[in-house]
Amino acid sequence: MKRDKHISEAVIRRLPRYYRHLDNLHYDGITRISSQKLADVLGCTASQIRQDLSCFGEFGQQGYGYNVSRLRAEIASILGMDRGRHCVVVGMGNLGRALVRNFPFSANGFILDAGFDLIEDQEGKNTFGLPVYPAEDLERHLARLKPDVAVLVTPRSVASQMANRLVAAGIKGIWNFTNIELTIDEPEKVILENVHFSDSLLSLSYRITAEELKK
Amino acid sequence: MKRDKHISEAVIRRLPRYYRHLDNLHYDGITRISSQKLADVLGCTASQIRQDLSCFGEFGQQGYGYNVSRLRAEIASILGMDRGRHCVVVGMGNLGRALVRNFPFSANGFILDAGFDLIEDQEGKNTFGLPVYPAEDLERHLARLKPDVAVLVTPRSVASQMANRLVAAGIKGIWNFTNIELTIDEPEKVILENVHFSDSLLSLSYRITAEELKK
Repeated sequence: MKRDKHISEAVIRRLPRYYRHLDNLHYDGITRISSQKLADVLGCTASQIRQDLSCFGEFGQQGYGYNVSRLRAEIASILGMDRGRHCVVVGMGNLGRALVRNFPFSANGFILDAGFDLIEDQEGKNTFGLPVYPAEDLERHLARLKPDVAVLVTPRSVASQMANRLVAAGIKGIWNFTNIELTIDEPEKVILENVHFSDSLLSLSYRITAEELKK
Repeated sequence: MKRDKHISEAVIRRLPRYYRHLDNLHYDGITRISSQKLADVLGCTASQIRQDLSCFGEFGQQGYGYNVSRLRAEIASILGMDRGRHCVVVGMGNLGRALVRNFPFSANGFILDAGFDLIEDQEGKNTFGLPVYPAEDLERHLARLKPDVAVLVTPRSVASQMANRLVAAGIKGIWNFTNIELTIDEPEKVILENVHFSDSLLSLSYRITAEELKK
């Protein structure tokens, strides 16, 4: 598979959505789809899909459209979902536990190996089948587990400090749910992905307001 | 304030991010910023900001730049944050509780009035100061509270059924954390905003993979 040198941020944001919809189509038993039909499902134009995918090769076929399971597998591979990546959850509060319990890590190509608990917890060493270790032993366990990604769900007050420990321990990416801009000592050593719930709620707020103003 | 008839989805997605950064600048005590500096903070071009804002009026001033607190207030108003909207949380599992406890609803212009519990809970009627009612009494309490938005954090198996009850009870928007595509009987009556954690993780996965392939 080729991979253009400069893939725009917008393309990188669209690829997971393409994957998600192709995954749905695949599980609905749809094996083949025209480029126009796929564009309708994705809510964009056929030419945008073609242009986005052209950064990585030729996938559709003139007059046939797309083979759903093949395109799904190709995009999974572009996204690195076939690399058996490992991850850990840092922070076992409500949100940490909700992610451990409900988020389908394996369906997204990630193996969840351990959780780290920051606050002394009465619940014991195991949460929903996941081994949970005290944060003070973080470095020792990371040296052993060698995860690629840390899911950061700590309280805000310790978020940057914990992030720097993770980077120093060799973590490649931080999936940041703490809703703060992390201050990283060596930013070139890590890739940050921030989840901003508020952006999503505010866009809903906007659309409700716009709808009301129409009336 | 004017409001163009057709605001693109991309603009609607960028406005909350503009707000978030302006809010940070405001709390850092910055009162005025050049359009170029603001563009740097936002990671886009000055002309994109100007073009996005032009859908709603004239905000910057030639040779002065932007007044941070005024622009922040204007965007808050565009986003409907000044309308005193009310919301409820439906589903008081780990994720529901994490949102009640940690998500700054009021800083985003929302008043959180109540939670609804689907599973009989031993924890009593109050969670982090929020009154929690059984889901069977949903309609009665919604008639009284008249919330605009429901935060949907139920198990997947009951998500669509619960969403339809919320729409029938007059909810204007559903902030959907269930990670399924809701099946709504009267889709024209409600605005859906879906939070897809996986899109975020997969874009991180992509960027880690791209970084590795460079080496």
